[in-house]
Amino acid sequence: MGTDLDSGITLEELQLAARNHGMPLEGLRYDVTPVGMHYLLIHFDIPETDAATWTVEVAGKVRTPLSLSVGDLEERPAVTARITMECAGNGRARLTPRPISQPWLQEAVGTAEWTGTPLAPILEEASLDRDAVELVFTGADHGIQGDIEQDYERSLSVADAMRGEVLLAYAVNGRPLPPQHGAPVRLLVPGWYGMTSVKWLRRVTAVAEPFTGYQQWAYGVRQSEDDPGTPVTRIEPRALMVPPGFPDFMARTRTIDAGPVELIGRAWSGFGGIERVDVSDDGGASWSQASLGAVPESAFAWRSWSFAWDAREGDRQLVCRATDTTGRTQPIDQPWNFHGLANNLVQRVPVVVRRP
Amino acid sequence: MGTDLDSGITLEELQLAARNHGMPLEGLRYDVTPVGMHYLLIHFDIPETDAATWTVEVAGKVRTPLSLSVGDLEERPAVTARITMECAGNGRARLTPRPISQPWLQEAVGTAEWTGTPLAPILEEASLDRDAVELVFTGADHGIQGDIEQDYERSLSVADAMRGEVLLAYAVNGRPLPPQHGAPVRLLVPGWYGMTSVKWLRRVTAVAEPFTGYQQWAYGVRQSEDDPGTPVTRIEPRALMVPPGFPDFMARTRTIDAGPVELIGRAWSGFGGIERVDVSDDGGASWSQASLGAVPESAFAWRSWSFAWDAREGDRQLVCRATDTTGRTQPIDQPWNFHGLANNLVQRVPVVVRRP
Repeated sequence: MGTDLDSGITLEELQLAARNHGMPLEGLRYDVTPVGMHYLLIHFDIPETDAATWTVEVAGKVRTPLSLSVGDLEERPAVTARITMECAGNGRARLTPRPISQPWLQEAVGTAEWTGTPLAPILEEASLDRDAVELVFTGADHGIQGDIEQDYERSLSVADAMRGEVLLAYAVNGRPLPPQHGAPVRLLVPGWYGMTSVKWLRRVTAVAEPFTGYQQWAYGVRQSEDDPGTPVTRIEPRALMVPPGFPDFMARTRTIDAGPVELIGRAWSGFGGIERVDVSDDGGASWSQASLGAVPESAFAWRSWSFAWDAREGDRQLVCRATDTTGRTQPIDQPWNFHGLANNLVQRVPVVVRRP
Repeated sequence: MGTDLDSGITLEELQLAARNHGMPLEGLRYDVTPVGMHYLLIHFDIPETDAATWTVEVAGKVRTPLSLSVGDLEERPAVTARITMECAGNGRARLTPRPISQPWLQEAVGTAEWTGTPLAPILEEASLDRDAVELVFTGADHGIQGDIEQDYERSLSVADAMRGEVLLAYAVNGRPLPPQHGAPVRLLVPGWYGMTSVKWLRRVTAVAEPFTGYQQWAYGVRQSEDDPGTPVTRIEPRALMVPPGFPDFMARTRTIDAGPVELIGRAWSGFGGIERVDVSDDGGASWSQASLGAVPESAFAWRSWSFAWDAREGDRQLVCRATDTTGRTQPIDQPWNFHGLANNLVQRVPVVVRRP
């Protein structure tokens, strides 16, 4: 039923859950998630930064090293785009046995309107050396993970970094980035899970060997610690609905009056557009197709869907499931992996339908 | 040590922890907490509201019922004030046995700059009947708690409601309220725990008998379900520090280089100003007095403090403790109560001080 925990959440997991936060699913109502409702996952501390003196260094295997202030970035061509971002660990807490890390249930998502300048022309200006194979992005957040002291760092291949949609972003929903979203400058890699979009960006370093830092290993789908595994990259398809009716404070179980109900939600995939969303009210025994909203202007923003549900009295279990244009869909039973990553199990919402 | 959980957090508690969120303690750096870092506790769902058609009804035992639009409220005299708000359940998860509800550790706090219009002149305009004893504030969030279906509702005595600092607020940090903070209008009762400051305010009803709704009962300090107990009102004193050094991702244990370190933090009380903050680096065996920042302009905003710490190599446990002008201070061992309310146990931060 997707409602059991393998065992009680530990203090360490709770400490993370109290700092980081998901999007309450009512937030699926909005095309653009209000700041404060968008999910947040911060590995270490939110660093203290000063936009007035901040620079992003472009260095390493380049002919022309650059040092770009926030003002320099703002003077370059600006792009504003709606981008759905999801944490690669979303859904982790529903796995059995539960991988111990930030214990997301299903709410680690949000869609914001980000403003920034494309990275590719900056890399062209810096002129990468012939032997550069990757770009390493270094954030200002610093701490220990897996017994290794580190700045938060992730890399992209030159080809991925040069894609037109990759931005150095300095504003969200029309305002300068707030501290928790990477002020004053962050990387944004649309279509990829959030770990790639390095916040509080300090340095972009061209390197001649693939980067093997801790976070590059940590975001891999593997069956055991020794398994080399596969890197996590693009966002797997997922549909979520606004839970209908009203909740019980503790159990969050929903109650609704019998009769016609419009179910609404959003669906997204980092691999392609959303092609269909299916809905069930009997736990997945039977399915009906939802109506899709207009194709979003941005290829990287979620798509709305709705479904005219005839809610009949009794205990129901709503389920929704997205399929994208590449044929990828959501599993009914989630395959397990060591870090609990790229989990896209279908959402299940138990609803008590009562006589009106 | 304040670092143990009585038992594993349940799925129901985790569901709440994933929706609601605390202020990462780095947020203590800011005089005014950025939106998105301020704590949030929402009992039911964030309702869908429309500022253009919203009204607050003033009714019940009044001579002149009022229906106030957001525009009407904005046209009245405006007050902007920094107000520290804390959840009455802050620290609940550290109690043994643990009361089951939103499992806060210590981070359910924030200070925002709220703008609104004073409530007292509105009540004067409505002209309370002679037998009115309380005002009931009804929010639009709806659900079930304690097996009772309800709109979120809380009351204040006429005397408390008429205090000059009580506002109907429509903006925070200079912008219209976002959905999660009570858009478009909320009550604000400075100095009181957050449960009193009803969000998504629909109705203010003057009544001739004390209100006995569910939330009035739920926010009481009692030893058992049958104990009549004492209502929770004003915020007990508390000091918190920005954890120094850098964290381990999972354990959140801090590491710092030996040498001089400036510890900084904030302290507040809903009963009076902050008179002193004491700091210990040996778990409370010995204490030194911190330096207090300027007295805040607003009587209801937190006060900054700092302490020049000589961090000596080894495992240290930092503790801080606030005392207010009424002599109230923080307990070293927290007395238990049934709902886990008004808990103000001292903060303890384990730090590994290493050779630089």
